Amino acid sequence: MLSLNIINEKMSKLDNWALEGNAITKDFRFGTFKGALEFINKIGEIAEKLNHHPDITLSNNLVRLSLTTHSENGLTSMDFELAEEIDKIR
Amino acid sequence: MLSLNIINEKMSKLDNWALEGNAITKDFRFGTFKGALEFINKIGEIAEKLNHHPDITLSNNLVRLSLTTHSENGLTSMDFELAEEIDKIR
Repeated sequence: MLSLNIINEKMSKLDNWALEGNAITKDFRFGTFKGALEFINKIGEIAEKLNHHPDITLSNNLVRLSLTTHSENGLTSMDFELAEEIDKIR
Repeated sequence: MLSLNIINEKMSKLDNWALEGNAITKDFRFGTFKGALEFINKIGEIAEKLNHHPDITLSNNLVRLSLTTHSENGLTSMDFELAEEIDKIR
């Protein structure tokens, strides 16, 4: 699990993620359900590649991603690696 | 919006859905993230066909579907139609 100092430093390099408890989150709005689902599938490909998987909610064409390392009960470098890869596609 | 009597009658015909506030919900557990995502894509196809879309959360290979009619602020026959179609594939 990362220290808050390291977390803050890593947060500053990300594009608009928010720290919420033990997770970093970001919302993505789409014009259609289909567009939102296509995005979720892209996220799935990245997650499978990194073998690290986000929590995903989809409601009313809004996708919320929440990254944390469940097994560590907190944020690890894997979460920030995943966030960086997600920022590259969106 | 449906009356509680009608809702209860329709609930009894579904397979293991729960009434939670203005929505009906059901959880589906998968062995892998990939399996969960494939299921979400099948749900997406059904939702597009019916032009009625569930709220979806995916966390730790658990998919939770929550059906409500946002525009009506409650449950309508569309939600039960969608639930029936989902029960057919799972």
